[in-house]
Amino acid sequence: MAGAGRRPYNFSAGPAAMPEAVLQRAASEMLDWHGSGMSVMEMSHRGKEFGAICAQAEADLRTLLAVPEHFHILFMQGGGLGENAIVPMNLSRGGQVDFVITGSWSAKSQKEAQRYCQAHVAASNADSNHTQLPAPSTWQLSADASYVHICSNETIHGVEFQELPDLATLGSQAPLVIDFSSHVASRPVDWRRVGLAFGGAQKNLGPAGLTLVIVRDDLLGHALEICPSAFNYRIVADNQSMYNTPPTWGIYIAGLTFQWLLGQTEGGLTGVAAMEQRNLAKAGLLYDFIDASAFYENKVSPDCRSRMNVPFFLRDESRNDAFLAGAREAGLLQLKGHKSVGGMRASIYNAMPLEGVQALVAYMREFERSHA
Amino acid sequence: MAGAGRRPYNFSAGPAAMPEAVLQRAASEMLDWHGSGMSVMEMSHRGKEFGAICAQAEADLRTLLAVPEHFHILFMQGGGLGENAIVPMNLSRGGQVDFVITGSWSAKSQKEAQRYCQAHVAASNADSNHTQLPAPSTWQLSADASYVHICSNETIHGVEFQELPDLATLGSQAPLVIDFSSHVASRPVDWRRVGLAFGGAQKNLGPAGLTLVIVRDDLLGHALEICPSAFNYRIVADNQSMYNTPPTWGIYIAGLTFQWLLGQTEGGLTGVAAMEQRNLAKAGLLYDFIDASAFYENKVSPDCRSRMNVPFFLRDESRNDAFLAGAREAGLLQLKGHKSVGGMRASIYNAMPLEGVQALVAYMREFERSHA
Repeated sequence: MAGAGRRPYNFSAGPAAMPEAVLQRAASEMLDWHGSGMSVMEMSHRGKEFGAICAQAEADLRTLLAVPEHFHILFMQGGGLGENAIVPMNLSRGGQVDFVITGSWSAKSQKEAQRYCQAHVAASNADSNHTQLPAPSTWQLSADASYVHICSNETIHGVEFQELPDLATLGSQAPLVIDFSSHVASRPVDWRRVGLAFGGAQKNLGPAGLTLVIVRDDLLGHALEICPSAFNYRIVADNQSMYNTPPTWGIYIAGLTFQWLLGQTEGGLTGVAAMEQRNLAKAGLLYDFIDASAFYENKVSPDCRSRMNVPFFLRDESRNDAFLAGAREAGLLQLKGHKSVGGMRASIYNAMPLEGVQALVAYMREFERSHA
Repeated sequence: MAGAGRRPYNFSAGPAAMPEAVLQRAASEMLDWHGSGMSVMEMSHRGKEFGAICAQAEADLRTLLAVPEHFHILFMQGGGLGENAIVPMNLSRGGQVDFVITGSWSAKSQKEAQRYCQAHVAASNADSNHTQLPAPSTWQLSADASYVHICSNETIHGVEFQELPDLATLGSQAPLVIDFSSHVASRPVDWRRVGLAFGGAQKNLGPAGLTLVIVRDDLLGHALEICPSAFNYRIVADNQSMYNTPPTWGIYIAGLTFQWLLGQTEGGLTGVAAMEQRNLAKAGLLYDFIDASAFYENKVSPDCRSRMNVPFFLRDESRNDAFLAGAREAGLLQLKGHKSVGGMRASIYNAMPLEGVQALVAYMREFERSHA
């Protein structure tokens, strides 16, 4: 399946492809990390070896995302769906929260938050079938919201904020919460506009089971009484993410990924800025090809198309199975779209090289030629 | 450090030593699991490859622990400390719950549960400094408790129930909840006496970040309204542990460990029964040596000494640092006791071979000879 000696290109939406260099390093260190005589999985989280791994991962992530000092970096468990409850338990104070619905994930967040607060829908793109972003100027923000929640990249619908909203200019004093699970580290973050960012690691950072939370200092300490201690941001922060045993392997793999990202260069840029250039090139190549084709279609408005998740359709959907089977033969894996949307989806995260997108476009062109 | 070509023996209380065969297998499959072209970390949890891994792990665990069909096996996140909140959110119905305090972990469980229910202390061994088990006949059980909670092996204090209490004979109709984090799969479980068992994986099953819950069918569906969906046992069970993205790598490693366990034999026994024989032999060797020595001491009552976690003290504690440094030189790692107890602790889980305990006893004997 792997084609000419290479690994297949894996377009899974998550868990997703990882840098091959990270996998090779993890394999080589499996039985003995740096002469310790232990696998990272076997290390006490309280020991000096894992302490060093975790501190380095946090420091590297802070560098990579340019996280200001007044934000805490927390390594947690529970994934994005867990955070849908954990964020309002920590930040809502039982009051009103504004949600901007732009696809499946923000809709799930709003629904879950209703257990803990008044989860007000300030805007929604449901009438466009989640293919457009409602302009911030149209959002019906509350006067006294505890926070405003957006999903800055909708993995399923392929809709991305190309710029974070500046809530202050919209008349809201509330902190902005972003679910950035599926585009974290693919582009810079303007932390001046953010109060809290969370994401599951399994798209751009590492394995499933690690959840990243980056939270501004003043937002800690307001958890509801029913918030479990293990998910109370104040307690997690005070214990350097080791109140409960953290997902040590996930932190280790994410740390290797951070080091890989810090070493990437593109057009004189490094790290996330370099990745952004590559991601623009990859996404541009794929969207341009789809737009120029009468055989394929992407329905998302061009101003909010995701650089990470590209849902697309064959206009003749009777060819879907043949398309997927041929792709698999060509070493192009996991292209089937999410069941709620149908069609195809190519997730082209940081670990997907330009060559992978070129191979996908070449395959799509050939499939079109032979089936049109 | 590794001595004569072998890996060091790692006595960490958790995350803890893993079978070398599991680590080797994981390393060899890192870049390509079974010809799929993917690392397990890169697989969609919805794909057929990971689906097969997860189903096999669950089936093997059911075989290994002889879990009856009317119990659900759930793979979750959040660890034991997370479960301290998740169990009462799912099972307490906001009513009364009985706790038997036998050490740090059961005490933490009782404290956390107070957020969700009336957490009644039915018995405590605090007056013995957590070195004895209160006899079940002395427990002050409530007439109408939603459940009774015990920690069946206290990792820090080294206290283990050698037999699970039969609540029916104690006048309680409540289901028994056991926190079996640190001795799961080291001995059989009498499921007739259990309603729910939970444990973090990082002692006997796999890496940190995977939490195992085994729960009787009739106990599902009673969660409090404030229970997060991702931690609602009914929802997790209905979605075969894939309501949120599960910790896929942890499930894979646990699955490899289950297969390793199923292949173990001892004295004509296999699986957990074989491990129990080995664990009895390992623990017996270490306790017998300590009891015969005037240099070392274990303070736990012989009838409830843990087979997994052996805290011990040098009677002259001024030699602690020399003991630990020499142990490290001898390839005997992570023997320092928990800070709340002090002294030393040897955790001798399933993955610790008899040879590791023999090496520890030999070192302890030599240290005593040269320092007594």
